Amino acid sequence: MEKLENSEDCRETASPLNNSGSIMNSTMPHCDGKAMGFVLVHAGAGYHSESKAKEYKHVCKRACQRAVDQLRAGGLALEAVTAALIELEDSPFTNAGTGSNLNLSGEIECDASIMDGKSLNYGAVGALSGIKNPVLVAGRLLSEAQKGKLSAGRIPPCFLVGRGAEQWAISHGIPACLTEKMTTKFSLSAYKRNKRKMELAEQVETKRRRQTSGRGKDFGCLEPVGEIMVEGEENHSACLDTVGAVVVDREGNVAAAVSSGGLAMKHPGRVGQAAHYGCGCWAENARDVSLYSTAVSTSGSGEHLIRTILARECSSAMQAENAHQALLEAMQNKFISSPFLAGEDCVLGGVIVLRCCTCEETQNAKDIKALLVEFLWSHTTESMCVGYMSAQDSKARTRISRLPPGAVAGQSLAIEGGVCRLGTASD
Amino acid sequence: MEKLENSEDCRETASPLNNSGSIMNSTMPHCDGKAMGFVLVHAGAGYHSESKAKEYKHVCKRACQRAVDQLRAGGLALEAVTAALIELEDSPFTNAGTGSNLNLSGEIECDASIMDGKSLNYGAVGALSGIKNPVLVAGRLLSEAQKGKLSAGRIPPCFLVGRGAEQWAISHGIPACLTEKMTTKFSLSAYKRNKRKMELAEQVETKRRRQTSGRGKDFGCLEPVGEIMVEGEENHSACLDTVGAVVVDREGNVAAAVSSGGLAMKHPGRVGQAAHYGCGCWAENARDVSLYSTAVSTSGSGEHLIRTILARECSSAMQAENAHQALLEAMQNKFISSPFLAGEDCVLGGVIVLRCCTCEETQNAKDIKALLVEFLWSHTTESMCVGYMSAQDSKARTRISRLPPGAVAGQSLAIEGGVCRLGTASD
Repeated sequence: MEKLENSEDCRETASPLNNSGSIMNSTMPHCDGKAMGFVLVHAGAGYHSESKAKEYKHVCKRACQRAVDQLRAGGLALEAVTAALIELEDSPFTNAGTGSNLNLSGEIECDASIMDGKSLNYGAVGALSGIKNPVLVAGRLLSEAQKGKLSAGRIPPCFLVGRGAEQWAISHGIPACLTEKMTTKFSLSAYKRNKRKMELAEQVETKRRRQTSGRGKDFGCLEPVGEIMVEGEENHSACLDTVGAVVVDREGNVAAAVSSGGLAMKHPGRVGQAAHYGCGCWAENARDVSLYSTAVSTSGSGEHLIRTILARECSSAMQAENAHQALLEAMQNKFISSPFLAGEDCVLGGVIVLRCCTCEETQNAKDIKALLVEFLWSHTTESMCVGYMSAQDSKARTRISRLPPGAVAGQSLAIEGGVCRLGTASD
Repeated sequence: MEKLENSEDCRETASPLNNSGSIMNSTMPHCDGKAMGFVLVHAGAGYHSESKAKEYKHVCKRACQRAVDQLRAGGLALEAVTAALIELEDSPFTNAGTGSNLNLSGEIECDASIMDGKSLNYGAVGALSGIKNPVLVAGRLLSEAQKGKLSAGRIPPCFLVGRGAEQWAISHGIPACLTEKMTTKFSLSAYKRNKRKMELAEQVETKRRRQTSGRGKDFGCLEPVGEIMVEGEENHSACLDTVGAVVVDREGNVAAAVSSGGLAMKHPGRVGQAAHYGCGCWAENARDVSLYSTAVSTSGSGEHLIRTILARECSSAMQAENAHQALLEAMQNKFISSPFLAGEDCVLGGVIVLRCCTCEETQNAKDIKALLVEFLWSHTTESMCVGYMSAQDSKARTRISRLPPGAVAGQSLAIEGGVCRLGTASD
């Protein structure tokens, strides 16, 4: 029986706000257990109230376990990441699949995407209603495209939206699901509360317009009377908590996925970063020009994550020597201070990042091949909930990462992470 | 009255296939006319039959004229690029707006996007039916987002799809248009022909499956009996001819836009590169870190252009010293030989690119401020139809660029371009 690697081999360190020192220099123990992979998941960057922290952590833990079950059964990164996402989508607490935010019309419209670092194939769905697990449709688009052209030489789609996406899913054997079944008591009451706020805000706006019209002045955009996303509010976390996962398997392949119900009270048809290539997730195995395999999944304000193509930017940054420093700089320069978001005073988002490389060494006259996995998360939101686990661990670790007291969400960032060395004795 | 710059100031040179020599070294005449801008448009990369060449050139000419009309009237790049796109969408010959390819259900679903290099704002619509000019909806999304947040602090969308996009457009005063009015005799007959081909291909596939099932062999993907896109066929050009434009205005601002009816016989809900951030168009004014303002618009096989984020890649490449060489390398390394398209033996696409910078010099004791505009197009398809015009020109020039005889579409490329110096006497 193979020797399981002690979970102590997973070292996690936390770095304070804007600390640019490396966290990757921890002494790493040697191990000779068989490397079967590693998973890092997130239940969104947003605001996670203390009262619901337990639930968020619990769903992250379960998602890690599902991914690890796949890895232990010999599954590759793509299968493991899908398994994690299904668990995250099925939780009524996350803003993905069941429990998704409702849009302006009180409907659920989901975005999801998945990327395979080995083949670099990709699949995405946007504004998808009536399907319990949007990630399954994205995954099926990816696998169908791998089969080659459709009849009469047509190129298979990598991105489907709306009713067409739903029809495609059903015609490919993915079962339909009534919106009512995916709506929770919580999402419905949040919708009703938000609707009242919007109506009030619009009444005030109309009143102000009337009062100022006599003076010929037009307010392009008035100050809202109450924001949909109010700090500390019980339902606040529901606004941004997209879910996602990144995985590396025993062969060193990476995969990433993301899934989201989108912003609360969004316009029907609005598609966020979770369905945008390069913005919601990214996975790329190491090849000639790149030393590291990298995988990224994002969460936060979709429009900001789209306009900065954040997943891909973070993935590119991960080829630098110091992963922690590279991610810190990417979040600072390519997100918070991005010229593409120059007009925004509050840039909300978070990422989970994994990078790995293979290293070989001789130990006790045996050739040891190891996978060195560095994993990080960073966010500009109040908090971000993450979980991680190696296939050798007996259980997942979870964390609700928070900005330090006094730090301003949307302008500051938190960054944490760890390193895990997965050893495997060569034959 | 200001002195109009002679159209001879626009020098165009063509370079042969895979010629990596610079075409930017032409001797450029001095001028002291007022620079009012420049436009470059495309009516798609695909196959443009000789019999329809005149029509394609004609629509490109009209589109350039519309953009220049805007520039001469003091309009900025964003307004000029929109005017060009409307003309291109309204042509029944192009695969955008009126005359778009029909999808599997015989419906029109359009993609379009627009980007402003000055504000770096962006708007896009995908799988949009029932609106005559999709670019107007993309443009309106861009301008609405510039006004700031919506009521109750909601972030305005930058990307809308399907029925939701249509509803949003109508609620913002953009008139609806019956699909029948946008369908042409040509697009309908192409649809019927393609449908027959598909049915035949599927019958053959079913027959082959039956014949082989006894031997326990399963064909994942069979060779098509007839491709939807057959070289030399009269309707071939309709398959890929997305339209687009790039503009620089008198202030040196750039803008880019793209619009497409998508692939013929696509699955309903399929969204192509024209609605994908970074893939369909890109525009970025020069700033601290970048010397040149750049604008790009793409055309071709949407899935390939998405997976290579080609518009943005070409834009980034344009910061190199030699524009022609940089575009050649980008098309070769980031498109034809992209690791993201490793499984594809035929990579079909084209780009139009514009880059410009301001230069100052003294001439006849006067300070001359000039805009140096370099413009290029490159394609791996059989042909690409382009048009270009400076605001000083009396009429647009058009070109159907073709691969040299013997070059293989999808594996080789053509690249051409020119340079235009727009001078303006400083006060």
